[in-house]
Amino acid sequence: MGRTAHSVIASGTRGWAQARTVEVIVQKYGGTSLASPERIQHVARRVVAAADAGASVCVVASAMGESTDELLALAASVSPHPHVRELDMLLTAGERISIALLSMAILDLGREAVSYTGSQAGIVTDTGHGRARIVEVRSSRVVEALAAGRIAIVAGFQGVTAGLEPTTLGRGGSDTTAVALAAALAAELCEIYTDVEGVFTADPRIVPAARKLEALSYEEMLELAAAGARVLALRSVEYARNYGVRIHVRSAFVDTPGTRIQEEEGMEHTIISGIAHDTSEAKVTLLEVPDRPGIAAAIFRPLADAGVNVDMIVQNVAADGRTDISFTVPKDDLEQAQPVLQVIDRAVGGRGVTSDVEVGRVSLVGAGMKTNPGVAADMFDALAEAAVNIEIISTSSIRISCLVREADVARAVEAVHDRFRLSEPVVLQEVHGD
Amino acid sequence: MGRTAHSVIASGTRGWAQARTVEVIVQKYGGTSLASPERIQHVARRVVAAADAGASVCVVASAMGESTDELLALAASVSPHPHVRELDMLLTAGERISIALLSMAILDLGREAVSYTGSQAGIVTDTGHGRARIVEVRSSRVVEALAAGRIAIVAGFQGVTAGLEPTTLGRGGSDTTAVALAAALAAELCEIYTDVEGVFTADPRIVPAARKLEALSYEEMLELAAAGARVLALRSVEYARNYGVRIHVRSAFVDTPGTRIQEEEGMEHTIISGIAHDTSEAKVTLLEVPDRPGIAAAIFRPLADAGVNVDMIVQNVAADGRTDISFTVPKDDLEQAQPVLQVIDRAVGGRGVTSDVEVGRVSLVGAGMKTNPGVAADMFDALAEAAVNIEIISTSSIRISCLVREADVARAVEAVHDRFRLSEPVVLQEVHGD
Repeated sequence: MGRTAHSVIASGTRGWAQARTVEVIVQKYGGTSLASPERIQHVARRVVAAADAGASVCVVASAMGESTDELLALAASVSPHPHVRELDMLLTAGERISIALLSMAILDLGREAVSYTGSQAGIVTDTGHGRARIVEVRSSRVVEALAAGRIAIVAGFQGVTAGLEPTTLGRGGSDTTAVALAAALAAELCEIYTDVEGVFTADPRIVPAARKLEALSYEEMLELAAAGARVLALRSVEYARNYGVRIHVRSAFVDTPGTRIQEEEGMEHTIISGIAHDTSEAKVTLLEVPDRPGIAAAIFRPLADAGVNVDMIVQNVAADGRTDISFTVPKDDLEQAQPVLQVIDRAVGGRGVTSDVEVGRVSLVGAGMKTNPGVAADMFDALAEAAVNIEIISTSSIRISCLVREADVARAVEAVHDRFRLSEPVVLQEVHGD
Repeated sequence: MGRTAHSVIASGTRGWAQARTVEVIVQKYGGTSLASPERIQHVARRVVAAADAGASVCVVASAMGESTDELLALAASVSPHPHVRELDMLLTAGERISIALLSMAILDLGREAVSYTGSQAGIVTDTGHGRARIVEVRSSRVVEALAAGRIAIVAGFQGVTAGLEPTTLGRGGSDTTAVALAAALAAELCEIYTDVEGVFTADPRIVPAARKLEALSYEEMLELAAAGARVLALRSVEYARNYGVRIHVRSAFVDTPGTRIQEEEGMEHTIISGIAHDTSEAKVTLLEVPDRPGIAAAIFRPLADAGVNVDMIVQNVAADGRTDISFTVPKDDLEQAQPVLQVIDRAVGGRGVTSDVEVGRVSLVGAGMKTNPGVAADMFDALAEAAVNIEIISTSSIRISCLVREADVARAVEAVHDRFRLSEPVVLQEVHGD
């Protein structure tokens, strides 16, 4: 994971990275920050300020405001099931517009700037249209632009296959573009400018007293993102961890420090980082399945083959050789999963399938909980006092997740936030130790 | 000018062109034809009908409806003078959207289709952003798609420089893309689908009895386009003539034959093809310029250097060693030309500059007028009878143009159209011979 082993850096780039004397910063601006001509001009001033401060700046831009959704609606009005390759051709028009406009605005401020599409910036992906993964960054054009003193504006969210086909990286893809470029350029910092001020101990819309976190480890941010925190795309955090890219998530509108995401070493150590919640999953239960070896594989292999993401699997204690098996799937995948579930039920000799969309998941994340066995008990206790019933529990070494009624989610988040005193600057050891 | 000497055809393409057994057709659809999802689906059905009839079809698409103007307005709202390279990056988003949508609609009809940007289709241009000229067509991807039985959908109006920078070809550029691809693919026909039914003997909005022309020579179409007929971009006709590309201009909405543009040989021979008018030019007069050798160069070299297109130059008979010199320039260039004109006036020792924007040009075009000396006299006579004063006359071997008052243009067009009986199927020899 060290910063010396970046396979994504071409040898020419590495030479430049070693020889250069100026700091390289990658700045990513989301669609909300670029939603109007005035906001684009505002972003241009921020970018130029960073360049004036002496850094080489590479900007990654999302499409303006809701334009990606507008293009999706246009596609839907032409075709009921748009061809994935052509949909990628269409959607990549969005960032093409924003990068050109941002580059114009920066040029008007007297700074040299040049825009690049994902393809021009060398964002090479696999062929998974609509959800492509970056396989290589051939950043020579960006490197040349930066070396010549230009500000490089790169289209986020998009790439190109080795066969020169257009691709998109899926929702949150611009974050991944930014982190991948930061890795390829060996940038000192990857700043993610967004419409919130950073990562909070809980969603401030639910817990007004939620506190902005100064810093998080990659693992904590990964767990929070996986548990439903929307501030950073999960894949971009994975990429940052793998390549050691330092991230600073901050507001595009307010000039205050946000949240830094970096290696754990040297961080102020807290037990609990924050609480995430997610109401995008549904609970599925296979009733009275025969309890025999191989039954789990018989259930979950066909679902995986159908592309259904399964999470939070729990198997009840068997009674008279039969057991209920519950798990969560994205609500968006439920319709597609239904026929597969019926086939599975018949194949394993179960007694029916139920599904429940009125559930939500509340997750407590913190690197310190590994060494603090009381954390889970405290969380369950807080939920019990708030009269919140727990339907499924799952844990990792730094996360505890509870599936509850959807209507109870906000109350559960508040209760847990309160119990762990997350509004206070540092979570104290004695709260959890016993 | 023969079809065997296409320098734009790569060797691999030529092999394919010689070996293939199916006809290749290039179809170009303008923005009006693609202005809504319904119209895109309509175009998709037309394209598929051509493919079902057995042809290999390569489609060139403009941006939807007014979208290029909308992108220009967006640029203007961000930057008072948008950078030309970034403006091209921006504008090329327009066709990217239309090609993807058209390809989706064709795929929905059960036909294989694939869209290509100008860059992907190998439309290589010079670096003249906003008005780039095609220097080469590297059509291997399009050829491969057609050879594999796919319909290729190519973005019009846009190209890429040898240095991989985005470019646009200027207004009417999609026509040029279509003709260039037809040449590169050695296509049997280049169909230009537009919002009119073909080329008419005059603008039907002015002369309701105007007749649709079945066929025109390249030279006639060149003169009509240069004289203000908007149906085909001048540059595309030049390109078609140079590479012997047969063009069929026809309606995207009505399924009737339009106008064919081809080599003169074998065409039904008419004396007069049609009348074009143009109100986009202004008249400039340099007053009482000394009448000495080199004076014309001293006037028109600085204007050319300033990028001002000059037309219809006339020099009056000199009196006492001084003469007035009049010419036309595009109204759009007049503001930019003014300081240059003042400098010229002082340099040559003239006595002032006047300009007049309330003028219009009426042009009569016909390959047969070379051998019919009475045509010009008939035209002047018709204008005199209609009480239209002629301010400047200019001629080519197949065109006569008269500059008149702008308010007289419609009456002048009607009078000339009437005199030459252009509503009747064939202009008769005896009308003009004498």
